Amino acid sequence: MKAPPEPHLLRPESYPFRLPIETQFSDMDLYGHVNNLAVGRFYESARARFQMQVFDHRNFFTRDATYSMMLVEVTMRYLAECNFPDPVEVGVGVSRIGNSSYVMQQALFQKGACVGLCEAVMVLTTRGKPTHIPADTRERMTPMLLRR
Amino acid sequence: MKAPPEPHLLRPESYPFRLPIETQFSDMDLYGHVNNLAVGRFYESARARFQMQVFDHRNFFTRDATYSMMLVEVTMRYLAECNFPDPVEVGVGVSRIGNSSYVMQQALFQKGACVGLCEAVMVLTTRGKPTHIPADTRERMTPMLLRR
Amino acid sequence: MKAPPEPHLLRPESYPFRLPIETQFSDMDLYGHVNNLAVGRFYESARARFQMQVFDHRNFFTRDATYSMMLVEVTMRYLAECNFPDPVEVGVGVSRIGNSSYVMQQALFQKGACVGLCEAVMVLTTRGKPTHIPADTRERMTPMLLRR
Amino acid sequence: MKAPPEPHLLRPESYPFRLPIETQFSDMDLYGHVNNLAVGRFYESARARFQMQVFDHRNFFTRDATYSMMLVEVTMRYLAECNFPDPVEVGVGVSRIGNSSYVMQQALFQKGACVGLCEAVMVLTTRGKPTHIPADTRERMTPMLLRR
Repeated sequence: MKAPPEPHLLRPESYPFRLPIETQFSDMDLYGHVNNLAVGRFYESARARFQMQVFDHRNFFTRDATYSMMLVEVTMRYLAECNFPDPVEVGVGVSRIGNSSYVMQQALFQKGACVGLCEAVMVLTTRGKPTHIPADTRERMTPMLLRR
Repeated sequence: MKAPPEPHLLRPESYPFRLPIETQFSDMDLYGHVNNLAVGRFYESARARFQMQVFDHRNFFTRDATYSMMLVEVTMRYLAECNFPDPVEVGVGVSRIGNSSYVMQQALFQKGACVGLCEAVMVLTTRGKPTHIPADTRERMTPMLLRR
Repeated sequence: MKAPPEPHLLRPESYPFRLPIETQFSDMDLYGHVNNLAVGRFYESARARFQMQVFDHRNFFTRDATYSMMLVEVTMRYLAECNFPDPVEVGVGVSRIGNSSYVMQQALFQKGACVGLCEAVMVLTTRGKPTHIPADTRERMTPMLLRR
Repeated sequence: MKAPPEPHLLRPESYPFRLPIETQFSDMDLYGHVNNLAVGRFYESARARFQMQVFDHRNFFTRDATYSMMLVEVTMRYLAECNFPDPVEVGVGVSRIGNSSYVMQQALFQKGACVGLCEAVMVLTTRGKPTHIPADTRERMTPMLLRR
Protein backbone atom coordinates (compact mmCIF):
# COMPACT_ATOMS: atom_id res chain seq x y z
CA MET A 1 0.00 0.00 0.00
CA LYS A 2 2.66 2.39 1.06
CA ALA A 3 6.42 2.72 1.17
CA PRO A 4 8.05 1.21 4.29
CA PRO A 5 8.68 3.79 7.00
CA GLU A 6 11.95 5.73 6.87
CA PRO A 7 14.51 3.96 9.10
CA HIS A 8 15.11 6.90 11.46
CA LEU A 9 11.42 6.86 12.42
CA LEU A 10 11.85 3.37 13.86
CA ARG A 11 14.67 4.33 16.25
CA PRO A 12 13.87 5.49 19.80
CA GLU A 13 16.85 7.88 19.79
CA SER A 14 15.27 9.94 16.99
CA TYR A 15 12.66 11.18 19.46
CA PRO A 16 13.78 13.86 21.94
CA PHE A 17 10.74 13.24 24.18
CA ARG A 18 9.91 9.76 25.40
CA LEU A 19 7.10 8.64 27.68
CA PRO A 20 6.88 5.16 29.23
CA ILE A 21 3.28 3.94 29.62
CA GLU A 22 2.01 0.82 31.35
CA THR A 23 -0.47 -1.19 29.31
CA GLN A 24 -3.67 -1.98 31.16
CA PHE A 25 -5.88 -5.06 31.26
CA SER A 26 -8.75 -3.15 29.63
CA ASP A 27 -6.53 -2.25 26.66
CA MET A 28 -6.83 -5.80 25.36
CA ASP A 29 -9.21 -6.60 22.55
CA LEU A 30 -10.90 -9.82 21.51
CA TYR A 31 -7.62 -11.13 20.16
CA GLY A 32 -5.61 -10.44 23.30
CA HIS A 33 -3.73 -7.58 21.65
CA VAL A 34 -3.76 -3.98 22.74
CA ASN A 35 -6.67 -2.51 20.79
CA ASN A 36 -6.40 0.36 18.34
CA LEU A 37 -8.24 2.79 20.56
CA ALA A 38 -5.81 2.15 23.40
CA VAL A 39 -2.93 2.74 20.98
CA GLY A 40 -4.59 6.04 20.03
CA ARG A 41 -4.80 6.91 23.72
CA PHE A 42 -1.08 6.19 24.20
CA TYR A 43 -0.24 8.65 21.42
CA GLU A 44 -2.65 11.22 22.83
CA SER A 45 -1.22 10.84 26.33
CA ALA A 46 2.29 11.35 24.99
CA ARG A 47 1.21 14.44 23.03
CA ALA A 48 -0.40 15.88 26.16
CA ARG A 49 2.66 15.20 28.35
CA PHE A 50 4.94 16.52 25.61
CA GLN A 51 2.95 19.73 25.39
CA MET A 52 2.85 20.07 29.16
CA GLN A 53 6.63 19.85 29.28
CA VAL A 54 7.34 22.06 26.29
CA PHE A 55 4.62 24.69 26.57
CA ASP A 56 3.41 26.79 29.47
CA HIS A 57 0.79 24.88 31.46
CA ARG A 58 -1.39 27.82 32.39
CA ASN A 59 -1.62 29.17 28.85
CA PHE A 60 -2.32 25.83 27.26
CA PHE A 61 -3.99 23.38 29.58
CA THR A 62 -6.41 25.13 31.91
CA ARG A 63 -10.01 25.95 31.14
CA ASP A 64 -9.08 29.63 30.92
CA ALA A 65 -6.04 29.04 28.70
CA THR A 66 -5.23 31.68 26.08
CA TYR A 67 -4.10 29.09 23.59
CA SER A 68 -5.37 25.72 22.63
CA MET A 69 -3.39 23.16 20.64
CA MET A 70 -6.00 21.62 18.39
CA LEU A 71 -5.45 18.31 16.70
CA VAL A 72 -6.57 18.70 13.09
CA GLU A 73 -5.29 15.51 11.54
CA VAL A 74 -3.76 12.31 12.81
CA THR A 75 -2.39 9.32 10.91
CA MET A 76 -1.61 6.10 12.73
CA ARG A 77 0.26 3.23 11.20
CA TYR A 78 0.18 -0.19 12.83
CA LEU A 79 3.44 -2.07 12.26
CA ALA A 80 3.16 -4.96 14.68
CA GLU A 81 1.02 -6.24 17.49
CA CYS A 82 1.23 -4.56 20.83
CA ASN A 83 0.53 -6.74 23.86
CA PHE A 84 -0.50 -6.62 27.49
CA PRO A 85 1.12 -6.70 30.11
CA ASP A 86 4.44 -5.34 28.81
CA PRO A 87 4.89 -1.58 29.04
CA VAL A 88 5.23 0.61 25.96
CA GLU A 89 7.24 3.73 25.29
CA VAL A 90 6.01 6.54 23.08
CA GLY A 91 8.55 8.76 21.35
CA VAL A 92 7.65 12.29 20.27
CA GLY A 93 9.52 14.71 18.05
CA VAL A 94 8.55 17.81 16.11
CA SER A 95 9.03 17.26 12.40
CA ARG A 96 7.77 20.59 11.06
CA ILE A 97 6.91 24.01 12.46
CA GLY A 98 4.65 26.19 10.32
CA ASN A 99 2.99 29.55 10.91
CA SER A 100 0.14 28.40 13.09
CA SER A 101 0.58 24.65 12.86
CA TYR A 102 3.20 22.08 13.63
CA VAL A 103 3.63 18.38 13.06
CA MET A 104 4.43 15.86 15.77
CA GLN A 105 6.02 12.62 14.74
CA GLN A 106 5.39 9.79 17.17
CA ALA A 107 6.44 6.18 17.52
CA LEU A 108 5.29 3.36 19.75
CA PHE A 109 7.91 0.96 21.09
CA GLN A 110 7.45 -2.30 22.94
CA LYS A 111 10.25 -4.67 23.97
CA GLY A 112 12.68 -2.71 21.81
CA ALA A 113 10.67 -2.93 18.59
CA CYS A 114 8.78 -0.12 16.88
CA VAL A 115 5.18 -1.38 16.70
CA GLY A 116 3.52 1.78 15.41
CA LEU A 117 3.96 5.27 14.01
CA CYS A 118 1.81 8.33 14.31
CA GLU A 119 1.85 11.74 12.69
CA ALA A 120 -0.26 14.46 14.24
CA VAL A 121 -0.91 17.90 12.80
CA MET A 122 -1.59 20.42 15.54
CA VAL A 123 -2.87 23.95 15.10
CA LEU A 124 -2.43 26.69 17.66
CA THR A 125 -5.71 28.49 18.24
CA THR A 126 -7.10 31.32 20.32
CA ARG A 127 -10.85 31.33 20.76
CA GLY A 128 -11.22 28.62 18.16
CA LYS A 129 -9.24 30.44 15.43
CA PRO A 130 -5.73 29.54 14.18
CA THR A 131 -3.14 31.97 15.43
CA HIS A 132 0.56 32.63 14.77
CA ILE A 133 2.86 30.48 16.91
CA PRO A 134 4.66 33.03 19.16
CA ALA A 135 8.46 33.25 19.00
CA ASP A 136 8.97 31.87 22.52
CA THR A 137 6.77 28.85 21.84
CA ARG A 138 8.74 28.27 18.65
CA GLU A 139 11.97 28.43 20.62
CA ARG A 140 10.72 25.95 23.19
CA MET A 141 10.01 23.52 20.36
CA THR A 142 13.47 23.71 18.78
CA PRO A 143 15.18 21.21 21.12
CA MET A 144 12.28 18.89 20.45
CA LEU A 145 12.91 18.56 16.72
CA LEU A 146 12.97 15.00 15.42
CA ARG A 147 16.53 13.73 14.97
CA ARG A 148 17.69 12.01 11.82
CA MET B 1 -1.48 22.37 5.82
CA LYS B 2 -3.44 20.40 3.31
CA ALA B 3 -5.89 20.87 0.47
CA PRO B 4 -9.55 21.14 1.54
CA PRO B 5 -11.40 17.83 1.32
CA GLU B 6 -12.99 16.92 -2.02
CA PRO B 7 -16.66 18.01 -1.98
CA HIS B 8 -18.14 14.55 -2.51
CA LEU B 9 -16.50 13.35 0.70
CA LEU B 10 -18.58 15.84 2.67
CA ARG B 11 -21.95 14.57 1.38
CA PRO B 12 -23.79 11.78 3.26
CA GLU B 13 -25.18 10.37 0.00
CA SER B 14 -21.67 9.48 -1.17
CA TYR B 15 -21.55 6.74 1.44
CA PRO B 16 -23.51 3.55 0.71
CA PHE B 17 -23.35 2.43 4.35
CA ARG B 18 -24.46 4.74 7.12
CA LEU B 19 -24.59 4.09 10.86
CA PRO B 20 -26.34 6.38 13.36
CA ILE B 21 -24.59 6.47 16.75
CA GLU B 22 -25.73 8.13 19.96
CA THR B 23 -23.08 10.25 21.64
CA GLN B 24 -22.57 9.40 25.30
CA PHE B 25 -21.90 11.54 28.34
CA SER B 26 -18.46 9.99 28.77
CA ASP B 27 -17.49 11.03 25.23
CA MET B 28 -17.12 14.63 26.37
CA ASP B 29 -13.69 16.05 27.05
CA LEU B 30 -12.53 18.93 29.21
CA TYR B 31 -13.92 21.39 26.68
CA GLY B 32 -17.39 19.85 26.49
CA HIS B 33 -16.76 18.49 23.00
CA VAL B 34 -16.75 14.88 21.97
CA ASN B 35 -13.13 13.84 22.47
CA ASN B 36 -10.87 12.50 19.74
CA LEU B 37 -10.80 8.99 21.14
CA ALA B 38 -14.59 8.81 21.08
CA VAL B 39 -14.52 9.98 17.46
CA GLY B 40 -12.04 7.21 16.75
CA ARG B 41 -14.44 4.76 18.40
CA PHE B 42 -17.33 5.97 16.21
CA TYR B 43 -15.28 5.25 13.09
CA GLU B 44 -14.22 1.87 14.43
CA SER B 45 -17.80 0.95 15.33
CA ALA B 46 -18.94 1.88 11.83
CA ARG B 47 -16.15 -0.17 10.26
CA ALA B 48 -17.11 -3.16 12.39
CA ARG B 49 -20.83 -2.88 11.54
CA PHE B 50 -19.99 -2.32 7.89
CA GLN B 51 -17.86 -5.44 7.82
CA MET B 52 -20.51 -7.43 9.65
CA GLN B 53 -23.07 -6.47 7.03
CA VAL B 54 -20.83 -6.92 4.01
CA PHE B 55 -18.75 -9.90 5.00
CA ASP B 56 -19.66 -13.26 6.45
CA HIS B 57 -19.86 -13.04 10.23
CA ARG B 58 -18.51 -16.48 11.05
CA ASN B 59 -15.48 -16.16 8.80
CA PHE B 60 -14.56 -12.71 9.97
CA PHE B 61 -15.73 -11.95 13.48
CA THR B 62 -15.53 -15.01 15.67
CA ARG B 63 -12.48 -16.20 17.58
CA ASP B 64 -12.13 -19.07 15.14
CA ALA B 65 -12.56 -16.92 12.06
CA THR B 66 -10.58 -17.89 8.93
CA TYR B 67 -10.01 -14.29 7.97
CA SER B 68 -9.21 -11.21 9.93
CA MET B 69 -9.55 -7.69 8.58
CA MET B 70 -6.57 -5.92 10.03
CA LEU B 71 -6.38 -2.16 10.23
CA VAL B 72 -2.92 -1.15 9.04
CA GLU B 73 -3.28 2.60 8.73
CA VAL B 74 -5.88 5.14 9.67
CA THR B 75 -6.00 8.88 9.03
CA MET B 76 -8.54 11.05 10.79
CA ARG B 77 -9.24 14.64 9.91
CA TYR B 78 -11.14 16.87 12.32
CA LEU B 79 -13.22 19.44 10.46
CA ALA B 80 -15.44 20.83 13.19
CA GLU B 81 -16.42 20.20 16.78
CA CYS B 82 -18.66 17.31 17.57
CA ASN B 83 -20.92 17.72 20.60
CA PHE B 84 -22.90 15.77 23.16
CA PRO B 85 -25.88 15.02 23.32
CA ASP B 86 -26.75 15.13 19.61
CA PRO B 87 -26.39 11.85 17.73
CA VAL B 88 -23.87 11.41 14.93
CA GLU B 89 -23.99 9.44 11.72
CA VAL B 90 -20.97 7.71 10.24
CA GLY B 91 -20.82 7.12 6.51
CA VAL B 92 -18.69 4.32 5.07
CA GLY B 93 -17.72 3.62 1.48
CA VAL B 94 -15.02 1.57 -0.16
CA SER B 95 -12.70 3.81 -2.17
CA ARG B 96 -10.20 1.23 -3.39
CA ILE B 97 -9.93 -2.55 -3.55
CA GLY B 98 -6.42 -3.98 -3.94
CA ASN B 99 -5.08 -7.53 -3.91
CA SER B 100 -5.12 -8.13 -0.19
CA SER B 101 -6.04 -4.67 1.03
CA TYR B 102 -8.85 -2.21 0.62
CA VAL B 103 -9.49 1.36 1.65
CA MET B 104 -12.55 2.51 3.56
CA GLN B 105 -13.49 6.14 3.30
CA GLN B 106 -15.50 7.38 6.27
CA ALA B 107 -17.22 10.60 7.25
CA LEU B 108 -18.74 11.80 10.50
CA PHE B 109 -21.91 13.85 10.31
CA GLN B 110 -23.69 15.77 13.04
CA LYS B 111 -26.75 17.98 12.56
CA GLY B 112 -26.30 17.77 8.81
CA ALA B 113 -22.68 18.94 8.75
CA CYS B 114 -19.61 16.85 8.02
CA VAL B 115 -17.44 17.25 11.13
CA GLY B 116 -14.75 14.73 10.29
CA LEU B 117 -13.24 12.40 7.72
CA CYS B 118 -11.42 9.14 8.09
CA GLU B 119 -9.51 6.91 5.72
CA ALA B 120 -8.72 3.40 6.86
CA VAL B 121 -6.49 0.91 5.09
CA MET B 122 -7.53 -2.64 5.88
CA VAL B 123 -5.63 -5.80 5.02
CA LEU B 124 -7.22 -9.22 4.78
CA THR B 125 -5.16 -11.75 6.70
CA THR B 126 -5.20 -15.43 7.53
CA ARG B 127 -3.11 -16.45 10.54
CA GLY B 128 -1.55 -13.01 10.66
CA LYS B 129 -0.40 -12.97 7.01
CA PRO B 130 -1.91 -10.87 4.17
CA THR B 131 -3.97 -12.98 1.81
CA HIS B 132 -5.71 -12.47 -1.53
CA ILE B 133 -9.22 -11.04 -1.19
CA PRO B 134 -11.47 -13.88 -2.49
CA ALA B 135 -13.75 -13.16 -5.46
CA ASP B 136 -16.97 -13.41 -3.45
CA THR B 137 -15.72 -10.97 -0.84
CA ARG B 138 -14.73 -8.61 -3.65
CA GLU B 139 -18.23 -8.92 -5.10
CA ARG B 140 -19.86 -8.18 -1.78
CA MET B 141 -17.84 -4.97 -1.61
CA THR B 142 -18.83 -3.67 -5.06
CA PRO B 143 -22.20 -2.16 -4.01
CA MET B 144 -20.37 -0.47 -1.18
CA LEU B 145 -18.08 1.60 -3.40
CA LEU B 146 -17.94 5.28 -2.52
CA ARG B 147 -20.17 7.37 -4.82
CA ARG B 148 -18.96 10.51 -6.52
CA MET C 1 -22.21 -14.18 48.76
CA LYS C 2 -25.41 -12.27 48.68
CA ALA C 3 -29.15 -12.83 48.48
CA PRO C 4 -30.53 -13.19 44.95
CA PRO C 5 -31.91 -9.90 43.56
CA GLU C 6 -35.54 -9.06 44.35
CA PRO C 7 -37.72 -10.20 41.42
CA HIS C 8 -39.11 -6.76 40.56
CA LEU C 9 -35.56 -5.51 39.87
CA LEU C 10 -35.25 -8.02 37.05
CA ARG C 11 -38.35 -6.82 35.16
CA PRO C 12 -38.02 -4.06 32.52
CA GLU C 13 -41.46 -2.68 33.38
CA SER C 14 -40.28 -1.74 36.89
CA TYR C 15 -38.18 1.02 35.37
CA PRO C 16 -40.02 4.17 34.24
CA PHE C 17 -37.06 5.32 32.13
CA ARG C 18 -35.49 3.02 29.58
CA LEU C 19 -32.62 3.69 27.17
CA PRO C 20 -31.66 1.39 24.30
CA ILE C 21 -27.91 1.36 23.61
CA GLU C 22 -26.03 -0.29 20.76
CA THR C 23 -23.05 -2.33 21.86
CA GLN C 24 -19.85 -1.45 20.02
CA PHE C 25 -17.00 -3.56 18.73
CA SER C 26 -14.58 -1.94 21.15
CA ASP C 27 -16.77 -2.97 24.09
CA MET C 28 -15.57 -6.55 23.73
CA ASP C 29 -12.92 -7.91 26.03
CA LEU C 30 -10.45 -10.73 25.67
CA TYR C 31 -13.26 -13.25 26.12
CA GLY C 32 -15.57 -11.76 23.48
CA HIS C 33 -17.96 -10.44 26.11
CA VAL C 34 -18.84 -6.84 26.71
CA ASN C 35 -16.25 -5.73 29.26
CA ASN C 36 -17.05 -4.37 32.71
CA LEU C 37 -15.96 -0.85 31.86
CA ALA C 38 -18.33 -0.75 28.91
CA VAL C 39 -21.13 -1.96 31.18
CA GLY C 40 -20.24 0.88 33.56
CA ARG C 41 -20.45 3.27 30.62
CA PHE C 42 -23.91 1.99 29.70
CA TYR C 43 -25.16 2.72 33.21
CA GLU C 44 -23.50 6.14 33.20
CA SER C 45 -24.98 7.00 29.81
CA ALA C 46 -28.45 6.02 31.06
CA ARG C 47 -28.03 8.11 34.21
CA ALA C 48 -26.98 11.10 32.11
CA ARG C 49 -29.91 10.75 29.67
CA PHE C 50 -32.28 10.16 32.59
CA GLN C 51 -31.10 13.32 34.29
CA MET C 52 -31.30 15.27 31.05
CA GLN C 53 -34.92 14.25 30.64
CA VAL C 54 -35.96 14.71 34.25
CA PHE C 55 -33.95 17.75 35.28
CA ASP C 56 -33.44 21.12 33.66
CA HIS C 57 -30.56 20.95 31.18
CA ARG C 58 -29.17 24.43 31.75
CA ASN C 59 -29.10 24.13 35.53
CA PHE C 60 -27.53 20.69 35.55
CA PHE C 61 -25.45 19.97 32.48
CA THR C 62 -23.65 23.06 31.27
CA ARG C 63 -20.30 24.30 32.51
CA ASP C 64 -22.07 27.18 34.27
CA ALA C 65 -24.73 24.96 35.84
CA THR C 66 -26.00 25.91 39.32
CA TYR C 67 -26.35 22.31 40.35
CA SER C 68 -24.27 19.27 39.82
CA MET C 69 -25.47 15.71 40.40
CA MET C 70 -22.47 14.02 41.91
CA LEU C 71 -22.11 10.26 41.94
CA VAL C 72 -20.93 9.29 45.43
CA GLU C 73 -21.34 5.55 45.35
CA VAL C 74 -22.12 2.97 42.73
CA THR C 75 -22.64 -0.79 43.07
CA MET C 76 -22.76 -2.96 39.99
CA ARG C 77 -23.81 -6.57 40.01
CA TYR C 78 -23.02 -8.82 37.06
CA LEU C 79 -25.70 -11.46 36.58
CA ALA C 80 -24.88 -12.85 33.16
CA GLU C 81 -22.65 -12.22 30.20
CA CYS C 82 -23.44 -9.35 27.91
CA ASN C 83 -22.40 -9.76 24.28
CA PHE C 84 -21.64 -7.83 21.10
CA PRO C 85 -23.34 -7.15 18.65
CA ASP C 86 -26.81 -7.30 20.23
CA PRO C 87 -28.14 -4.04 21.63
CA VAL C 88 -28.82 -3.58 25.32
CA GLU C 89 -31.47 -1.63 27.18
CA VAL C 90 -30.83 0.13 30.46
CA GLY C 91 -33.72 0.70 32.84
CA VAL C 92 -33.60 3.52 35.39
CA GLY C 93 -35.88 4.20 38.35
CA VAL C 94 -35.56 6.29 41.49
CA SER C 95 -35.69 4.08 44.56
CA ARG C 96 -35.19 6.70 47.27
CA ILE C 97 -35.24 10.48 47.56
CA GLY C 98 -33.44 11.96 50.55
CA ASN C 99 -32.65 15.54 51.58
CA SER C 100 -29.74 16.15 49.28
CA SER C 101 -29.26 12.71 47.84
CA TYR C 102 -31.25 10.18 45.87
CA VAL C 103 -30.76 6.61 44.76
CA MET C 104 -31.09 5.41 41.18
CA GLN C 105 -31.81 1.77 40.61
CA GLN C 106 -30.66 0.53 37.21
CA ALA C 107 -30.86 -2.70 35.28
CA LEU C 108 -29.19 -3.91 32.10
CA PHE C 109 -31.24 -6.03 29.71
CA GLN C 110 -30.12 -7.96 26.67
CA LYS C 111 -32.32 -10.23 24.56
CA GLY C 112 -35.02 -10.03 27.21
CA ALA C 113 -32.85 -11.13 30.12
CA CYS C 114 -31.59 -9.01 32.98
CA VAL C 115 -27.80 -9.32 32.79
CA GLY C 116 -26.86 -6.75 35.43
CA LEU C 117 -28.03 -4.44 38.17
CA CYS C 118 -26.68 -1.13 39.36
CA GLU C 119 -27.44 1.10 42.29
CA ALA C 120 -26.12 4.65 42.19
CA VAL C 121 -26.21 7.14 45.02
CA MET C 122 -26.30 10.70 43.69
CA VAL C 123 -25.87 13.87 45.71
CA LEU C 124 -27.09 17.26 44.56
CA THR C 125 -24.36 19.83 45.00
CA THR C 126 -23.79 23.52 44.41
CA ARG C 127 -20.16 24.60 44.25
CA GLY C 128 -19.05 21.20 45.43
CA LYS C 129 -21.24 21.15 48.57
CA PRO C 130 -24.36 19.00 49.12
CA THR C 131 -27.54 21.05 48.90
CA HIS C 132 -31.23 20.46 49.59
CA ILE C 133 -33.08 18.99 46.60
CA PRO C 134 -35.54 21.74 45.58
CA ALA C 135 -39.29 20.97 45.60
CA ASP C 136 -39.66 21.18 41.81
CA THR C 137 -36.77 18.79 41.23
CA ARG C 138 -38.35 16.42 43.75
CA GLU C 139 -41.65 16.66 41.87
CA ARG C 140 -39.98 15.93 38.54
CA MET C 141 -38.56 12.75 40.07
CA THR C 142 -41.87 11.42 41.40
CA PRO C 143 -43.08 9.86 38.11
CA MET C 144 -39.67 8.24 37.86
CA LEU C 145 -39.99 6.17 41.02
CA LEU C 146 -39.14 2.50 40.63
CA ARG C 147 -42.28 0.37 40.28
CA ARG C 148 -42.84 -2.75 42.32
CA MET D 1 -26.29 8.09 53.25
CA LYS D 2 -23.80 5.76 54.75
CA ALA D 3 -21.41 5.52 57.67
CA PRO D 4 -18.00 7.07 57.06
CA PRO D 5 -15.40 4.54 55.91
CA GLU D 6 -13.46 2.65 58.60
CA PRO D 7 -10.16 4.50 59.24
CA HIS D 8 -7.89 1.59 58.29
CA LEU D 9 -9.36 1.58 54.78
CA LEU D 10 -8.03 5.10 54.22
CA ARG D 11 -4.39 4.22 55.00
CA PRO D 12 -2.04 3.07 52.20
CA GLU D 13 -0.19 0.75 54.56
CA SER D 14 -3.32 -1.38 55.07
CA TYR D 15 -2.95 -2.64 51.50
CA PRO D 16 -0.25 -5.28 50.88
CA PHE D 17 -0.34 -4.70 47.11
CA ARG D 18 0.06 -1.22 45.69
CA LEU D 19 0.12 -0.11 42.06
CA PRO D 20 1.14 3.38 40.91
CA ILE D 21 -0.76 4.55 37.81
CA GLU D 22 -0.22 7.66 35.71
CA THR D 23 -3.39 9.62 34.99
CA GLN D 24 -3.88 10.37 31.31
CA PHE D 25 -5.21 13.41 29.48
CA SER D 26 -8.21 11.44 28.22
CA ASP D 27 -9.19 10.54 31.79
CA MET D 28 -10.48 14.09 32.32
CA ASP D 29 -14.17 14.81 32.15
CA LEU D 30 -16.09 17.97 31.40
CA TYR D 31 -15.18 19.33 34.82
CA GLY D 32 -11.45 18.72 34.51
CA HIS D 33 -11.54 15.86 37.03
CA VAL D 34 -10.66 12.27 36.37
CA ASN D 35 -13.94 10.74 35.27
CA ASN D 36 -15.67 7.84 37.00
CA LEU D 37 -14.98 5.39 34.19
CA ALA D 38 -11.25 6.11 34.40
CA VAL D 39 -11.41 5.54 38.16
CA GLY D 40 -13.12 2.22 37.43
CA ARG D 41 -10.30 1.39 35.02
CA PHE D 42 -7.68 2.16 37.68
CA TYR D 43 -9.31 -0.32 40.06
CA GLU D 44 -9.61 -2.92 37.31
CA SER D 45 -5.98 -2.47 36.31
CA ALA D 46 -4.89 -2.94 39.91
CA ARG D 47 -7.05 -6.05 40.27
CA ALA D 48 -5.51 -7.49 37.10
CA ARG D 49 -1.92 -6.74 38.17
CA PHE D 50 -2.67 -8.05 41.66
CA GLN D 51 -4.01 -11.29 40.25
CA MET D 52 -1.08 -11.59 37.87
CA GLN D 53 1.32 -11.31 40.78
CA VAL D 54 -0.57 -13.54 43.18
CA PHE D 55 -1.96 -16.19 40.87
CA ASP D 56 -0.36 -18.25 38.15
CA HIS D 57 -0.43 -16.37 34.86
CA ARG D 58 -0.97 -19.33 32.56
CA ASN D 59 -3.86 -20.74 34.56
CA PHE D 60 -5.63 -17.45 34.96
CA PHE D 61 -4.88 -14.98 32.20
CA THR D 62 -4.49 -16.73 28.89
CA ARG D 63 -7.28 -17.65 26.51
CA ASP D 64 -6.78 -21.29 27.41
CA ALA D 65 -6.70 -20.65 31.15
CA THR D 66 -8.22 -23.34 33.42
CA TYR D 67 -9.57 -20.77 35.82
CA SER D 68 -11.18 -17.43 35.37
CA MET D 69 -11.59 -14.89 38.14
CA MET D 70 -14.99 -13.41 37.45
CA LEU D 71 -16.04 -10.10 38.89
CA VAL D 72 -19.58 -10.55 40.21
CA GLU D 73 -20.08 -7.36 42.14
CA VAL D 74 -18.20 -4.13 42.55
CA THR D 75 -18.93 -1.12 44.77
CA MET D 76 -17.07 2.12 44.26
CA ARG D 77 -17.21 5.00 46.66
CA TYR D 78 -16.03 8.45 45.58
CA LEU D 79 -14.54 10.37 48.50
CA ALA D 80 -12.84 13.30 46.78
CA GLU D 81 -11.95 14.56 43.34
CA CYS D 82 -9.12 12.92 41.49
CA ASN D 83 -7.20 15.12 39.06
CA PHE D 84 -4.95 15.02 36.04
CA PRO D 85 -1.90 15.15 35.72
CA ASP D 86 -0.87 13.83 39.16
CA PRO D 87 -0.36 10.08 39.39
CA VAL D 88 -2.53 7.88 41.57
CA GLU D 89 -1.78 4.78 43.59
CA VAL D 90 -4.21 1.92 43.99
CA GLY D 91 -4.00 -0.27 47.09
CA VAL D 92 -5.34 -3.81 47.03
CA GLY D 93 -5.90 -6.23 49.89
CA VAL D 94 -7.97 -9.38 50.33
CA SER D 95 -10.63 -8.85 52.97
CA ARG D 96 -12.39 -12.21 52.82
CA ILE D 97 -11.75 -15.64 51.30
CA GLY D 98 -14.80 -17.86 50.81
CA ASN D 99 -15.27 -21.25 49.16
CA SER D 100 -15.32 -20.14 45.58
CA SER D 101 -15.29 -16.39 46.03
CA TYR D 102 -13.12 -13.77 47.64
CA VAL D 103 -13.38 -10.06 48.30
CA MET D 104 -10.78 -7.51 47.27
CA GLN D 105 -10.70 -4.25 49.14
CA GLN D 106 -9.21 -1.41 47.12
CA ALA D 107 -8.36 2.23 47.73
CA LEU D 108 -7.35 5.06 45.43
CA PHE D 109 -4.75 7.51 46.67
CA GLN D 110 -3.64 10.79 45.15
CA LYS D 111 -1.17 13.22 46.73
CA GLY D 112 -1.34 11.29 49.98
CA ALA D 113 -5.13 11.42 50.34
CA CYS D 114 -7.58 8.57 49.91
CA VAL D 115 -9.93 9.76 47.17
CA GLY D 116 -11.91 6.56 46.67
CA LEU D 117 -12.68 3.06 47.89
CA CYS D 118 -13.70 -0.05 46.02
CA GLU D 119 -14.89 -3.46 47.07
CA ALA D 120 -14.89 -6.20 44.46
CA VAL D 121 -16.37 -9.66 44.86
CA MET D 122 -14.58 -12.16 42.66
CA VAL D 123 -15.64 -15.72 41.94
CA LEU D 124 -13.28 -18.41 40.75
CA THR D 125 -14.80 -20.25 37.82
CA THR D 126 -13.94 -23.08 35.45
CA ARG D 127 -15.89 -23.16 32.23
CA GLY D 128 -18.24 -20.49 33.51
CA LYS D 129 -19.14 -22.30 36.74
CA PRO D 130 -18.00 -21.37 40.28
CA THR D 131 -15.38 -23.72 41.60
CA HIS D 132 -13.64 -24.33 44.92
CA ILE D 133 -10.58 -22.14 45.42
CA PRO D 134 -7.65 -24.63 45.49
CA ALA D 135 -5.44 -24.76 48.59
CA ASP D 136 -2.37 -23.35 46.85
CA THR D 137 -4.31 -20.37 45.50
CA ARG D 138 -5.65 -19.81 48.99
CA GLU D 139 -2.13 -19.88 50.36
CA ARG D 140 -0.89 -17.39 47.80
CA MET D 141 -3.62 -15.01 48.94
CA THR D 142 -2.76 -15.17 52.64
CA PRO D 143 0.10 -12.60 52.56
CA MET D 144 -2.25 -10.34 50.64
CA LEU D 145 -4.82 -10.04 53.42
CA LEU D 146 -5.88 -6.50 54.23
CA ARG D 147 -4.09 -5.16 57.32
CA ARG D 148 -5.92 -3.46 60.14
